[in-house]
Amino acid sequence: MMNKIKAAIVGYGNIGKYALEAIEASPDMECVGIVRRTASREGYPELAAYPVVTDIAELGKVDVAILATPTRSCREHAEKCLAMGINTVDSFDIHTSILDYRAALMPVAKEHGTVAIISAGWDPGSDSVVRTLMESLAPKGLSYTNFGPGRSMGHSVCVRSKAGVKDALSMTIPVGEGIHRRMVYVELEEGADLAEVTAAIKEDPYFASDETHVFAVDSVDALNDVGHGVNLTRKGVSGKTHNQLFEFNMKINNPALTAQVLVNVARASLKQQPGCYTMIEIPVIDMLPGDREDIIKHLV
Amino acid sequence: MMNKIKAAIVGYGNIGKYALEAIEASPDMECVGIVRRTASREGYPELAAYPVVTDIAELGKVDVAILATPTRSCREHAEKCLAMGINTVDSFDIHTSILDYRAALMPVAKEHGTVAIISAGWDPGSDSVVRTLMESLAPKGLSYTNFGPGRSMGHSVCVRSKAGVKDALSMTIPVGEGIHRRMVYVELEEGADLAEVTAAIKEDPYFASDETHVFAVDSVDALNDVGHGVNLTRKGVSGKTHNQLFEFNMKINNPALTAQVLVNVARASLKQQPGCYTMIEIPVIDMLPGDREDIIKHLV
Repeated sequence: MMNKIKAAIVGYGNIGKYALEAIEASPDMECVGIVRRTASREGYPELAAYPVVTDIAELGKVDVAILATPTRSCREHAEKCLAMGINTVDSFDIHTSILDYRAALMPVAKEHGTVAIISAGWDPGSDSVVRTLMESLAPKGLSYTNFGPGRSMGHSVCVRSKAGVKDALSMTIPVGEGIHRRMVYVELEEGADLAEVTAAIKEDPYFASDETHVFAVDSVDALNDVGHGVNLTRKGVSGKTHNQLFEFNMKINNPALTAQVLVNVARASLKQQPGCYTMIEIPVIDMLPGDREDIIKHLV
Repeated sequence: MMNKIKAAIVGYGNIGKYALEAIEASPDMECVGIVRRTASREGYPELAAYPVVTDIAELGKVDVAILATPTRSCREHAEKCLAMGINTVDSFDIHTSILDYRAALMPVAKEHGTVAIISAGWDPGSDSVVRTLMESLAPKGLSYTNFGPGRSMGHSVCVRSKAGVKDALSMTIPVGEGIHRRMVYVELEEGADLAEVTAAIKEDPYFASDETHVFAVDSVDALNDVGHGVNLTRKGVSGKTHNQLFEFNMKINNPALTAQVLVNVARASLKQQPGCYTMIEIPVIDMLPGDREDIIKHLV
């Protein structure tokens, strides 16, 4: 009998729910509990079989914590878990802060003999692996990451945090060569001012460098579709040979893919030396369950 | 001043020539010599600046040997170099023998504190990384690898080894869902029999499982184009969410890309623990030159 990897889910929003499904679908992993702000299963019948607690210390042995929390609270949760001897994985998605975040977790992980894998979603995450591979295949050249059309979870969460916003959806529209427009749909709270909300959104680092349009709508829920996509391209030079062409495309359910990546790196975390890693620093084979030689036989 | 990686090229055919270009284009690597069956530069003015020898032992310090030899002689060269304390990389391309080859080199590499990275071209190689990544993103589902249209170097070398064949070109034609047809063009030696050559080709493991057509032509050179391509697809399930769609496309100069991959894994070999690896077992970041944090900053 195989010893299953004991995973806890910290945060039970959109990603947390999909993470539970991904764990349940994994042959080598079990969910040993959910950590929430309130220890309630109300409205979540799928949690009947699982402990729900407010502090991860209340769960027994946990190998890895899947941090399905907003990006801005990842660090606090990660530092706490790592210091308790629990590996952590997250999909921290502020591209410009990844290096600082990695540097912050590195000594904590090393001191406690644990592993953190950060920024592991699809972008940053699996797209980063493809970008790095493409850059290696044609070291000189131009790459473009074209997102969408699709909802950006990070951007939507950001807008929802603004005063006066009851609910929000931020759509990412590719306009070519890695340039994007943000189409933001907000359901305002009673008495909130659209101009003030718009200004707050546009000055946030998430939106500051993109063309952004903000619209008030009656129901954000009526617009809700978590489909997303990406088109990664590179045209460049291998050695001294020009015009090498590479392209990667996905059309995916966004939180389902993010959650699957989190489960994959949770598994991979148990195969790394203590420290903090981004996805491009871990071998792709470590993300799969099963026998190493079987994987090589079937996928190499 | 940076200490450049000292690479030797073993074999100076098509891949060897492109490997030299890729080394020359690399900021962190230098070619310390070429190993050939005869120590001659005749016809290769680009070798004027490099030692050309018949035994790698004649070169001074070598960090890594790039084995640009036919697949079937990789093992002999690898075992010799590894035992001399030299890392090796190759693009061994018989998919069904990769595990055995890895098992054969593993103890040699470990005993001598060296690293071998095998089957590192584009398929097996970079495609393997994409296949593994795609499988991790949607663990249930179907993947297809569709090659071409393009010349297969491995298959062409195989045909050229048959009695009666002066020169040969094997084109790979995708017929969908990972099924391929082989279109083989042979320039026969005086008195050779096409039917006998055809039979020899069709019973070779390289061709045995594919629909294969063999044609005699006056000049293989007149057909020569080293362009190639691949279309990798996966449709599958992330967690419990179906219809996740992934696709990777390349249109490339085949030997130029293979050589670039060999140079990339030559670099990566110096960052691994002793042993024998396929490309899916090494982090993609290790294939790039330059500062690790810079790479994370620009590509994650």
